Amino acid sequence: MDESHFTLRDATVAIAGLGLMGGSLALALRDKNACRAIWGITRDPTTRAKAIQSGLVDRASPDLALAADADVIVLATPVRTILRQLALLGGIVHPGAIVIDMGSTKQEIAKAMEALPAHIQAIGAHPMCGKETYGFSAAEATLYQGAPFVLTPLKRTRPETVLTVQALALAIGARPIVLDPARHDRIVAATSHLPYVLSSTLVATAADRSRSDDKLFALAAGGFRDTSRVAASDTTMMLDILLTNRENIAALVRDAAHRLEELAGLLDAGNESDLRLCLEQSALKRREIYA
Amino acid sequence: MDESHFTLRDATVAIAGLGLMGGSLALALRDKNACRAIWGITRDPTTRAKAIQSGLVDRASPDLALAADADVIVLATPVRTILRQLALLGGIVHPGAIVIDMGSTKQEIAKAMEALPAHIQAIGAHPMCGKETYGFSAAEATLYQGAPFVLTPLKRTRPETVLTVQALALAIGARPIVLDPARHDRIVAATSHLPYVLSSTLVATAADRSRSDDKLFALAAGGFRDTSRVAASDTTMMLDILLTNRENIAALVRDAAHRLEELAGLLDAGNESDLRLCLEQSALKRREIYA
Repeated sequence: MDESHFTLRDATVAIAGLGLMGGSLALALRDKNACRAIWGITRDPTTRAKAIQSGLVDRASPDLALAADADVIVLATPVRTILRQLALLGGIVHPGAIVIDMGSTKQEIAKAMEALPAHIQAIGAHPMCGKETYGFSAAEATLYQGAPFVLTPLKRTRPETVLTVQALALAIGARPIVLDPARHDRIVAATSHLPYVLSSTLVATAADRSRSDDKLFALAAGGFRDTSRVAASDTTMMLDILLTNRENIAALVRDAAHRLEELAGLLDAGNESDLRLCLEQSALKRREIYA
Repeated sequence: MDESHFTLRDATVAIAGLGLMGGSLALALRDKNACRAIWGITRDPTTRAKAIQSGLVDRASPDLALAADADVIVLATPVRTILRQLALLGGIVHPGAIVIDMGSTKQEIAKAMEALPAHIQAIGAHPMCGKETYGFSAAEATLYQGAPFVLTPLKRTRPETVLTVQALALAIGARPIVLDPARHDRIVAATSHLPYVLSSTLVATAADRSRSDDKLFALAAGGFRDTSRVAASDTTMMLDILLTNRENIAALVRDAAHRLEELAGLLDAGNESDLRLCLEQSALKRREIYA
């Protein structure tokens, strides 16, 4: 199928899911005039109408079958929806087309992609630019600007497919990074999923105390606001992420819980020197990461 | 000592500690022309020179004895330094003067204030506007703008003293809230100290994993950045806070650890419905707090 190789500029890109990620991708591609046509696939009639009326997409449909005539199909839906859509796409997309997903975990998706017919090119992607807001109304053309854009090729992914998707990442201002799917999932468990679980736990713990003190959240300052921000993320999307990366996340959550028990013990004992050591190491590391 | 009552406008304010909090207080008071004179007490000769040369303070000294001629003495130092300074101030300040501290925990300070001679007025304060930056160079005149400014009067604190310090809070744009010291400490353990401990634990857990993967922090996005922000706070200041509010904090840290163990168990079991319940409750609460 080498004759089907194409450049992004000539491609029709169909985006399934016009939420924060898919909507922002459409806006960025339109903004940069990066491809020949943009099609939108979403079940939400209001979003379809808005996307058509604003000229954001050239065609819109509730049906994944629209992908049949597209050259690049981007799945910008929650992880388990992506898994269901991949099972359908084998019978829909034309030979040589590229299927990309933008799910936040990559290993289970990579397995599902391996099962696609050999004439379909497939590659995982994960742009690292989530927000706690979501939906089409939260989408913005600059979302991907400067963000790491992880690509997780399969063994069967052709080099020119990787190049096309790297071109897409660069076109929207992101920084492509190629990684193995398993390694990606191990990393984001620590950098993305653990922060979410800790943030959610902070809110749960403080909310429990607020039941006996109605002034509690009136005293919440910047520290609480920032540390709790991602707890407000879309629960359905986050559940898909957590449940498709369970082992990595559970291990890290337990590790964090053990560290907290240790810190509580140091507080009980008034062990200033060990407390200082723990806290100072984290402070230095945080300053080093964002130096 | 009723004849010694005065208004903020006529007062000489001595600030001990010209870091983020004390420096910002001096800048805000100067900016609003809120008092007759501003004096600075700091051991750092560079800060003294800068504060004098810029006209921020009218007098500067490394010695707490400067407080002898001040009408309002503000202790803007770490909590355990405040405790040491309070032990000295009894023999220094003049009758009718007001001693305020801006420490982040209030119960131990309230006890130390109770021990001051009866002719000295004393009241605790805690402006809720920390940042993870610190020192005189981080100070800014707008730091207190819109921030809750907790006042923790003692039983012996006179109503006119509370009024004078409320006037000071209002002058710098803050919102005064009167609270009991014990209640203050219970609340900030949940809204301020627990976020710090969780943030620090996030960095420690992720840093541990980064030892086996050098790309780990390259994939850190907004979620990690925000959730880890307060981990970079000044360790010495935070240790003073943790060690003077140990019981409240240790209980909350253990509570959070138990919740994390429970979440890890739900992940192991793939218990989607219970996971959804936990995460959705926190998401709704976070959105409610910052609606």
